Amino acid sequence: MTDTATYAKGLEGVVAGESVICRIDGLNGRLYYLGYPIEELARYSTFEETTYLLLYGELPTADELAEFTRRMRASRDLSEPVLDMIRSFPKVDHPMELLQSVVAYLSGYVEHRIQHSLTCNCRDTLHQVVQISSVVAAWQRFHEGKEYVNPRQDLSHGANFLYMLRGQEPEESEGRIMDTALVLHAEHGFNASTFTARVVASTGSTCYCSISAAIGALYGFLHGGANERVMQAVDEIGSKERVKDFLDNELERAHKIMGMGHRIYKAKDPRAIVMEGFLEELSEKKHDFRYLEILKELERDFRSRMEEKGKPLYPNVDFYSGAVYRLLGIPAILFTPIFAMARASGWLAHILEQRVDNRLYRPSSLYTGAPERHYPPIESR
Amino acid sequence: MTDTATYAKGLEGVVAGESVICRIDGLNGRLYYLGYPIEELARYSTFEETTYLLLYGELPTADELAEFTRRMRASRDLSEPVLDMIRSFPKVDHPMELLQSVVAYLSGYVEHRIQHSLTCNCRDTLHQVVQISSVVAAWQRFHEGKEYVNPRQDLSHGANFLYMLRGQEPEESEGRIMDTALVLHAEHGFNASTFTARVVASTGSTCYCSISAAIGALYGFLHGGANERVMQAVDEIGSKERVKDFLDNELERAHKIMGMGHRIYKAKDPRAIVMEGFLEELSEKKHDFRYLEILKELERDFRSRMEEKGKPLYPNVDFYSGAVYRLLGIPAILFTPIFAMARASGWLAHILEQRVDNRLYRPSSLYTGAPERHYPPIESR
Repeated sequence: MTDTATYAKGLEGVVAGESVICRIDGLNGRLYYLGYPIEELARYSTFEETTYLLLYGELPTADELAEFTRRMRASRDLSEPVLDMIRSFPKVDHPMELLQSVVAYLSGYVEHRIQHSLTCNCRDTLHQVVQISSVVAAWQRFHEGKEYVNPRQDLSHGANFLYMLRGQEPEESEGRIMDTALVLHAEHGFNASTFTARVVASTGSTCYCSISAAIGALYGFLHGGANERVMQAVDEIGSKERVKDFLDNELERAHKIMGMGHRIYKAKDPRAIVMEGFLEELSEKKHDFRYLEILKELERDFRSRMEEKGKPLYPNVDFYSGAVYRLLGIPAILFTPIFAMARASGWLAHILEQRVDNRLYRPSSLYTGAPERHYPPIESR
Repeated sequence: MTDTATYAKGLEGVVAGESVICRIDGLNGRLYYLGYPIEELARYSTFEETTYLLLYGELPTADELAEFTRRMRASRDLSEPVLDMIRSFPKVDHPMELLQSVVAYLSGYVEHRIQHSLTCNCRDTLHQVVQISSVVAAWQRFHEGKEYVNPRQDLSHGANFLYMLRGQEPEESEGRIMDTALVLHAEHGFNASTFTARVVASTGSTCYCSISAAIGALYGFLHGGANERVMQAVDEIGSKERVKDFLDNELERAHKIMGMGHRIYKAKDPRAIVMEGFLEELSEKKHDFRYLEILKELERDFRSRMEEKGKPLYPNVDFYSGAVYRLLGIPAILFTPIFAMARASGWLAHILEQRVDNRLYRPSSLYTGAPERHYPPIESR
């Protein structure tokens, strides 16, 4: 291939690598981690077990899972300098910037020494995955003028996150829903943030530095954050009777309906189906059906309009997740950080895979600038 | 193009974008920023002026340069929380991890508000470029158990860096050499770190978050750090008489000779020629010719061997730069951070260019993993 054989803007259609981690069958609305259907992982697995699966390629035995879970939980607590960083971070700013910063900082700050090499032991302590949720919870606590809540070792990753946010143990079902939401978001192939993690890892950089970079990519409004905007729409709509007017208006102005459609899925995103079930469960539990009613009507009306036009569009994972998080009492600014908490496992899996048969990512560019010119003295400019 | 039309490992040969910023004519050993030959910029320009050129696409008038320089210099000082982060960062760890962390942190911590959008005003305060050198200097000072040195407004970017490292104003020629070294490293097309910056920027993330991610990529040993290893070789060689034995040994063991050869340049890297001149100048000034003698003999002997084999290889910028930095009194661990100090201008130029006609970077991957399988109960594993 010559240097200018292929020009693919945004690398669309370019295969940038092989991977055994994730398979997305968009046509049939199926998603698999290491061959396991996401619905089965959502029903039977936990975030810790799914993380093991992503990092080792196989589901653990009972002993392996116990040991791995112990290690992950032992890494939850934040060090004092990291807590200081969080305390000092300006309140008006976004926790994603803080997260990106803290994860790179942890590269130096974990107690257990990591060998920063292509064959490093970075599945050993897992601070780079685990502490993201502690940072998010601590940021929110400080933001509310409250104290840091020490993590608990007896709770799942999802339940412990809610505990560290609230300072109170969540109900069992809330913890389970939060944990499963993390399972659903843990991995999704070569998206922009995962690709970033792989590019950085391809230079031989550390997993912390690669994950930190991926957080920077996820922060972009074209990548993370769609569920936040779904909830803005839900709030604007206000009640299910107003869905029709909302859609009339938005479609007349050719606005995109947030949470609807996906570059890959040409069917209902399987994660959206699980999230919809959680929203039903939480709505019953909290006796609050507003969000569920609006979203279901929005889906029904929008889908029927699009089907009429012969351009079917289906809900993606972001469509129902924002409402689930809100019923769990989580503010919208944490939605993208929660995405990072979950995806960190997938990022690390891709970083490890990238290292196995590594080639530095080094694409070409097409020069379209000025021909040679000479430096003029400043007086003559 | 279909999803699997192009598979290019490491994206080799794939054009990932158009750019007007940098032209590399590797065959003839020429490098241009916005059309200006690097030799002319090295001779006549400054890091501040070159940064203006990279960010605005044209050289500034005298008034524009004065205003831009004022802005850059006004952004040098570090805030107390950032100084705390540096103080708390473990001494055994690498300042690149700290740099990556601080730059993301600054995204929240700059006083002047930045609009985080595709059309943001991120050429206005330039903390994201300027403070990198302050962080590097502060880290080194704390590492030596010394106090932070407040920046000076009357020194060039390079001279101020040496001042903040030493606590004493450098000689004029040292400041000029340091500043020009930054000019030489400010930009070099779509390398892995610049590509990382563009991928992160393509999501709509901030320039701080994009530069932070790029630092993570530069940290990788396949990207930054070659000049550090050149100096390890120089130290191992010890004197010019031992160059022949060293090369006999290394070549017999099929080792790569660091600082020799470059994927793009098929002639002597034009930056190496400038750096070689600086090494001569500093060697005279310091009455210390050891490094110069070893490196010149290493270049001569290695080139003549490779020419005999019909595989000519020439020094790249890393070949002489480590020795220049060492004669400026800079420890080897700062060599890659200095690269980041310089390249930040190029990264920001690419981030701004990426935003003009943005398309999210989202390549495909080829699934080579397990077929669908079902979740087994843990007892049966």
